[in-house]
Amino acid sequence: MNRLDVALGERGYPILIGADLLAASGPGQDALSDLQLCAVPGGQPHRCLVVTDENVARHHLPALAGCLQRAPSELPTLVLPAGEQHKTLANFGRILDACAAAGLRRDDLLIALGGGVIGDLAGFAAASYMRGIDFLQIPTTLLAMVDSSVGGKTGLNLAAGKNLAGAFWQPRLVLADTATLTTLDRREYRAGLAEVVKYAAIGDPSLFEWLVANVAAINAADAGAVAWMVEQSCRHKAAIVARDEREHGDRALLNLGHTFGHALEAALDYQGLLHGEAVAIGMVQAARLSTQLGLASAADHDRLRTLLVDLGLPVDPPALPVERLEHHMALDKKASRSGLRFVLWRGIGEAFIATDVPAEAVREVLGAGPGALGPGPSQPNG
Amino acid sequence: MNRLDVALGERGYPILIGADLLAASGPGQDALSDLQLCAVPGGQPHRCLVVTDENVARHHLPALAGCLQRAPSELPTLVLPAGEQHKTLANFGRILDACAAAGLRRDDLLIALGGGVIGDLAGFAAASYMRGIDFLQIPTTLLAMVDSSVGGKTGLNLAAGKNLAGAFWQPRLVLADTATLTTLDRREYRAGLAEVVKYAAIGDPSLFEWLVANVAAINAADAGAVAWMVEQSCRHKAAIVARDEREHGDRALLNLGHTFGHALEAALDYQGLLHGEAVAIGMVQAARLSTQLGLASAADHDRLRTLLVDLGLPVDPPALPVERLEHHMALDKKASRSGLRFVLWRGIGEAFIATDVPAEAVREVLGAGPGALGPGPSQPNG
Repeated sequence: MNRLDVALGERGYPILIGADLLAASGPGQDALSDLQLCAVPGGQPHRCLVVTDENVARHHLPALAGCLQRAPSELPTLVLPAGEQHKTLANFGRILDACAAAGLRRDDLLIALGGGVIGDLAGFAAASYMRGIDFLQIPTTLLAMVDSSVGGKTGLNLAAGKNLAGAFWQPRLVLADTATLTTLDRREYRAGLAEVVKYAAIGDPSLFEWLVANVAAINAADAGAVAWMVEQSCRHKAAIVARDEREHGDRALLNLGHTFGHALEAALDYQGLLHGEAVAIGMVQAARLSTQLGLASAADHDRLRTLLVDLGLPVDPPALPVERLEHHMALDKKASRSGLRFVLWRGIGEAFIATDVPAEAVREVLGAGPGALGPGPSQPNG
Repeated sequence: MNRLDVALGERGYPILIGADLLAASGPGQDALSDLQLCAVPGGQPHRCLVVTDENVARHHLPALAGCLQRAPSELPTLVLPAGEQHKTLANFGRILDACAAAGLRRDDLLIALGGGVIGDLAGFAAASYMRGIDFLQIPTTLLAMVDSSVGGKTGLNLAAGKNLAGAFWQPRLVLADTATLTTLDRREYRAGLAEVVKYAAIGDPSLFEWLVANVAAINAADAGAVAWMVEQSCRHKAAIVARDEREHGDRALLNLGHTFGHALEAALDYQGLLHGEAVAIGMVQAARLSTQLGLASAADHDRLRTLLVDLGLPVDPPALPVERLEHHMALDKKASRSGLRFVLWRGIGEAFIATDVPAEAVREVLGAGPGALGPGPSQPNG
């Protein structure tokens, strides 16, 4: 088991990463009881409510109950339907009502067991119930392990856009049991890889080289490769969050590919593309924009594109009206009154935040056809 | 115009108190433009959304629009129905949707114009929209001016209880135009007085004496008396909030009468009693409990009771099953796993937090009949 720490002072917390942390005799059990999940020394046990979705409940709820030394039937649990379209105000309300029904008080605990949708919704409910109670993140998708479960961004989607409401609310613990990924749908797994590539593209050229060199092991979901990717990703995320918890600066780098990606997701009504897939396409668009503005080489765009293709991710956007994408971009919450903010790059590992991107350049990228930018076929080592 | 400051560092803000602050040529206009409400020097104007209720909109929306130098029709406004029963998740969602419809971004502004319900709901929406945008409190009831608009507690009611969801989110400015109180219903005005009495009861014996000595002026809503009460109350509130923003300690003193009061409101389904009326009854119950536990004199209970009666407030609870009240108390968010927390007192101006109150003593108070505790008729100077 590996342990990383998110250094946020009194809001700091550990990230535990390893295989079989949720197994009955696994190290997760110690971690959970270390955190006084079940019993405060000399006091009464904490009450808790588990929030999960119907897929995850089937696979992993019994193991979690075992870790908490409860029968599953004695563990108050709210099972929500699975999928991004359920990340709604109504389900946020269902979690809040379930907290009250479970008799949770200020010193009790909410446990998010699932992917990004569950973590974001349950985290926002934890931030809001009685104006804030503790919560744990137990991510069960690669995307949640490498990104959404770490850093305290919680939220829900409004009709007008994704994650338009939410809170910054840090968990008390992130417990990433990489064995849960074996039940993960292949497409979900690949979508998570997009966020791993993102950390490399933002600031870690050696991670990028490692990914290129280990495509086969990654595609085979080799346990060692997976553990390494989760650890490296969490290390990057933890460091950035510790520097800039509320995204006043550096943290915005994590949005590489997200301004394009969110617009794409919104324009498709959050159907058809997984978040990670949209981010993969969006990163390639951000790289293309950087090349077009003379900031980065076409070769680096092509290397990024090739790696994503090799990992089974989409890189070309579906055909959509440019005006519709622009409309959703203007509503993106990363936009300020002074114009669209984009994360661009000077090449692999050198992302930066640009606030003065000409709308015409963006429009050109949105309207561009598919394909590599380099001369002739894509040149991974160009 | 008087100015107080809530000393919370970078989250600090001024409270402006005075008559006619919202008048077209009044000092409020300067205050609002000082805060770059309408125009960022050298930049684009902030967008804003006003949230108000149907009663307040009729009386005060034109004046606010004037202050902002807009035609009322050009000021994006969401008008909610008036009343505590509308402090719901659904209306929270309506505000969030309205923020998106008004095109608000991270650096824009929400304005709460109204009483506690509007301030709490709009404040929670400001805390949540894009994970937090700025907001202003323009309280138009006495209760909101002396209590709910200051200190950053925001929230909504769940079916299971009052204010069970919310956030701590400080406004950027509180603008209390005491002239708006002239349109206030007499009963609403009196309900606000309960919270003024509360500050005196918690920690200010000389304010208590002033209230006793000025009952006639207060009941006549004399402008000078009102301004003085608002100022003294805000001074107390600001000092306590600055010491303990998130209610880990002292701030809980502000809940004098609220554990009893909230249970009463919940047991009545939030109908029949205004919040301030419930607090008046609850304070007398807390004083009775203190007397019963041998902590305070019967005379101080009776003096509190007499002042509240003289101010036209109810002091005896309606007949309700004790079990029902106990049920709602157990759910109160001020309760922890280690038992009910009560604010008790040792006499006028000497409140403290008690965590070890025997359930039987509470039950006795809940079941007690009406009346003073002192020997014979109530003795204000006993």
